[in-house]
Amino acid sequence: MENIIDLAARVGQALKQRKLLMATAESCTGGGVAQAVTEIPGSSEWFDCGFVTYSNASKTDLLNISEALIAQHGAVSEEIAAAMAEAAVANSNAQVAVSTTGIAGPGGAVPGKPVGTVCFGWMVGNKVRTERKVFQGDRQAVREQAVAHALACLVRQLEE
Amino acid sequence: MENIIDLAARVGQALKQRKLLMATAESCTGGGVAQAVTEIPGSSEWFDCGFVTYSNASKTDLLNISEALIAQHGAVSEEIAAAMAEAAVANSNAQVAVSTTGIAGPGGAVPGKPVGTVCFGWMVGNKVRTERKVFQGDRQAVREQAVAHALACLVRQLEE
Repeated sequence: MENIIDLAARVGQALKQRKLLMATAESCTGGGVAQAVTEIPGSSEWFDCGFVTYSNASKTDLLNISEALIAQHGAVSEEIAAAMAEAAVANSNAQVAVSTTGIAGPGGAVPGKPVGTVCFGWMVGNKVRTERKVFQGDRQAVREQAVAHALACLVRQLEE
Repeated sequence: MENIIDLAARVGQALKQRKLLMATAESCTGGGVAQAVTEIPGSSEWFDCGFVTYSNASKTDLLNISEALIAQHGAVSEEIAAAMAEAAVANSNAQVAVSTTGIAGPGGAVPGKPVGTVCFGWMVGNKVRTERKVFQGDRQAVREQAVAHALACLVRQLEE
């Protein structure tokens, strides 16, 4: 897996070339994606803002995701990840967004969603894509892999 | 300086004992405070949400901080740090908040505000406190020291 800071730099370069701003909407990574991209000097040229919507209430309050949608699919779902990415764009000056919602562990597993389950959303070019992955390892390992995956796929989508 | 994760764990313990929820409003640390506290297992019991208001526009859009106040004091000021901490509480379910706004470098210095300048705000028990510090070192070092200081002072204020 490519280094997180290298990935963040590539994201920045791709956004800068395309004159795009990005935003984040993070649950299980808790700000790790925003932290990584803002580690890059000059990131204020292409990073607008991030929403760390850790509680379900904050997903509703900050991102206007309906309680009914969360109840229907569960907070850890591709549907909520998609809604988070869309809302990050809708509620900011960014055109591009990435979102994460998952179960970093050690607690929180539910039937069909083991510890390590992370759902991602990416909004690039008005198109939303989602993915569900199950990462191995402890809480820190799951979160790091989730940050790296969020950035790696964002680079790919920007460079398409 | 105490390890960031140890500080985050102490913040969590203090919040849990007092049945309080916290929020963050970060500019120069870019989500690093939220990332640190959510590294603690079970942080969903005491962490509500975070605002990574990196651009000035996002400080206005997400936290309702007036453009006039930013123009008057500059985004890197104790006045804006105070407003960010208050707004994090006002716009969330949290009772406690910490904010950061600073110049991590290498660019961005202005007269009277060298690289390494970070302004902090803490809202604890309906009281807002602020502080201005100048940290030494490169971008990563400044940001790490800022995250650690934000958490260390939050622990002290919670334990008063």
